[in-house]
Amino acid sequence: MSFDAHIFRDAQTGLIIDFTDAPAGQTDGLGAAVEAMAAIEHGEMANIDERRMVGHYWLRSPDLAPTDAIQQDIQSTIDQIKDLERGDHDAIVWIGIGGSGLGPQLVEAALRTPDTPTVLFLDNTDPATFQEVLSGIDPVRTLVVVVSKSGGTVETRNGLMAAMRRWEDAGEPFAPHAIAITGHGSRLWKAANDWRARVQLWDWVGGRTSVTGPVGGVLMSLCGMDFQAFLNGAAACDALTRLDPEDNPAALMAGAWHRAGDGVGNRSLVVEPYVDRYALLSRYLQQLVMESLGKRLDRQGREVHQGLVVYGNKGSTDQHAFVQQLRDGRNDAFVHFLETAAPGPAIVGADDHLASDHLLGFLVGTRSALSEADRPSLTLQVPDVSARSLGMLIALFERAVGLYAELVDINAYHQPGVEAGKKAATAATALLVRLREQLNETPQTAGALAESLEADPRLCWRLLHHLAASGRATAAAGAQPSTDQFSLAGN
Amino acid sequence: MSFDAHIFRDAQTGLIIDFTDAPAGQTDGLGAAVEAMAAIEHGEMANIDERRMVGHYWLRSPDLAPTDAIQQDIQSTIDQIKDLERGDHDAIVWIGIGGSGLGPQLVEAALRTPDTPTVLFLDNTDPATFQEVLSGIDPVRTLVVVVSKSGGTVETRNGLMAAMRRWEDAGEPFAPHAIAITGHGSRLWKAANDWRARVQLWDWVGGRTSVTGPVGGVLMSLCGMDFQAFLNGAAACDALTRLDPEDNPAALMAGAWHRAGDGVGNRSLVVEPYVDRYALLSRYLQQLVMESLGKRLDRQGREVHQGLVVYGNKGSTDQHAFVQQLRDGRNDAFVHFLETAAPGPAIVGADDHLASDHLLGFLVGTRSALSEADRPSLTLQVPDVSARSLGMLIALFERAVGLYAELVDINAYHQPGVEAGKKAATAATALLVRLREQLNETPQTAGALAESLEADPRLCWRLLHHLAASGRATAAAGAQPSTDQFSLAGN
Repeated sequence: MSFDAHIFRDAQTGLIIDFTDAPAGQTDGLGAAVEAMAAIEHGEMANIDERRMVGHYWLRSPDLAPTDAIQQDIQSTIDQIKDLERGDHDAIVWIGIGGSGLGPQLVEAALRTPDTPTVLFLDNTDPATFQEVLSGIDPVRTLVVVVSKSGGTVETRNGLMAAMRRWEDAGEPFAPHAIAITGHGSRLWKAANDWRARVQLWDWVGGRTSVTGPVGGVLMSLCGMDFQAFLNGAAACDALTRLDPEDNPAALMAGAWHRAGDGVGNRSLVVEPYVDRYALLSRYLQQLVMESLGKRLDRQGREVHQGLVVYGNKGSTDQHAFVQQLRDGRNDAFVHFLETAAPGPAIVGADDHLASDHLLGFLVGTRSALSEADRPSLTLQVPDVSARSLGMLIALFERAVGLYAELVDINAYHQPGVEAGKKAATAATALLVRLREQLNETPQTAGALAESLEADPRLCWRLLHHLAASGRATAAAGAQPSTDQFSLAGN
Repeated sequence: MSFDAHIFRDAQTGLIIDFTDAPAGQTDGLGAAVEAMAAIEHGEMANIDERRMVGHYWLRSPDLAPTDAIQQDIQSTIDQIKDLERGDHDAIVWIGIGGSGLGPQLVEAALRTPDTPTVLFLDNTDPATFQEVLSGIDPVRTLVVVVSKSGGTVETRNGLMAAMRRWEDAGEPFAPHAIAITGHGSRLWKAANDWRARVQLWDWVGGRTSVTGPVGGVLMSLCGMDFQAFLNGAAACDALTRLDPEDNPAALMAGAWHRAGDGVGNRSLVVEPYVDRYALLSRYLQQLVMESLGKRLDRQGREVHQGLVVYGNKGSTDQHAFVQQLRDGRNDAFVHFLETAAPGPAIVGADDHLASDHLLGFLVGTRSALSEADRPSLTLQVPDVSARSLGMLIALFERAVGLYAELVDINAYHQPGVEAGKKAATAATALLVRLREQLNETPQTAGALAESLEADPRLCWRLLHHLAASGRATAAAGAQPSTDQFSLAGN
């Protein structure tokens, strides 16, 4: 008769997960999954395709790392990060994409205060954003942090090039204002030889699990946030998530994901923090979960097309957006409510309730309305909005993803599916150059130009219009796309 | 052999939709759907449950409205909006949730310039955000805009109450700095009697289609953005989307959605603007699409549990986040790439390409990689980032949603599924009060208190901890949740 049975609570960390409304039952294989994670933590070559260890757990517990050299390397890097100083800088331009952007964005949105510097993120290669962000800063008072493990990520290189020109145009040296976070010996490492600082990234930390390493740490240190508390929160959650499945919150979550989606992701994880400061968590988890679990092959080489979709913003805002569908429409979601035990400031709202009473009311009200309609959910609670609680949350989901990957027997640590797009992108920019070389004073159609280059006419048509729109070709519209004519610029 | 067959292009608006990679074929019923939309535009009571007309199309073409009175009402309201002046205010606090928040957020993110005022959005009832936002503003130089059709939306009322206290605490009168956007005669309308301005909302415009009315217009007018161009863009797209299905871009889209998801939403719409300024479009479309189409019953009363999931952020950023899953994992997405013809500033990036060359390369590269793996997509193009192009996009999706709703025979204009959550929330806040009244000096468990109130013990347990965390009760932790003890505060 008690309601305890479906509530996980750990007194030491303050982590609570209420599974009352989640799919009931047991999931086989969780014990083996927990053992497999232990092997990973001890340095097994878990990312078999790329022949890499998976070491993000060591970042917050260096004594776990498999060799003394790695342990010392982690500790000295953490010490280096903590000693970083912002100096006279009151703004930061942070250049990084994927895990090098999302983690820092989550941390900044959650933990910024009136005293933290303005942080501006360049996480794409949109030139309008480069111009907008860089024209608005003061090069003397702004730090630039560039994050790329290889140093070769095109979006990040473009952002760095734009930033360096901005400093050059201002007559201000760049190096004293720049910090690189990159692999030891990478092209960026070499280029940053005389910069204010360079901090190393290890090949055993993937981008989507890099936030508890230098990627998150440098941001926190420069912003005066408590990086050690963040690490401690993650380490405390790591300790919990090494326990046997029945006492292990990450194993309980992974099992619930597996049952909710029939082991093939038939339900999306809809992440609903009823805490504005954690609103970016869903975007962060989109990468962590989808890039880890969205795989074509299992570890036996079978085509499985696994994955779990993640979306969401925040509650109660989303109740006014798409909860209509979650309750009444397609029954394909598994909602993860997130709340803090601390209710925030005591601000009075309508009908003499506190604003926080309403916020909690909306959470439990929506949970109840979903449950009535047989729509599953779980409710996560962390103590507050803090570096420690955020570290706990991140570690919890990292472990749940790792355990789920074991349940469905996939490699959660590579991303083979993104290479094809990058290669095709490189081919497209190369084709742009060749098309431009083919233009002359005689107008030609995309089809004719494509034929001479043995390329796809539709792709050529789009690229030719881009050349025209950017002043590098002249376009004359035809009645149909295929009759548009292109010639040298100025013709 | 030509590539024209799958490309929609309209020379006048500059709208292009490339369906080459979208599910091919014909969808029955689009002709009837276009006719049904015409009836709606002529004032049919399309929202039958709520007995309301659906008039958002009239906002940009007032001559379509079914009566002279409505026509004049729209025109005089548009004139009122255009005449609004910001005065000496250089910041705006915008209080509104759902369509009253998302539309203005999209417009502001897309169209802000260095000359537009700072706009701060309160779109929830998180007290920490109220405190953060309101402590950072200058009441003398800040306008408050409050948006609620009924005036009763709790989150918005709470935001307004917090704002009014902020002005009071500063000794500054509130009314000269406040604008209400609300239904004529609502409680907010009455309260705003002496405010700087009040602008009416009509019951024939739903929140999720309100951005081309006063909700978007007031923001644009106060920010110096071109509201008329926004309306003209929407009107131009409306004209296109009244055509026969084969020439109608919204009908072509709705048909592709239907084929992609087998008429039951088996594929999510993943919205990928390769334009940073349009990055909020996916969140805006989440509401427009999911709240419109996520329905339990069709118009014949059959249980259909319809819906279309929408998520996404921006490209190429998302290529580094979840495109791995879209290409390799679950085959359940229909990606909508979005680009502008205008390439933005000519900023040179890696390998002597423009940054915009890379951005386009990533779009076509990812499209090609998805297509190779039999993952469908379409590519939308609008001329640029502008009020006109944004109006076009919004009108295009509004019409596609309306047409899709006709195909699957649902009412796209109500949201019956959100009432249950609101009612349960009200019950929860009422229970909070009753629990507090039941507390005394003798510690009691949640179960005991729940029994005396005939309430759910788990819910009581959560609410009691909230009372304790906010200083209105004392909690003593037990070994299990059910053995936690609660008493009067201070005990």
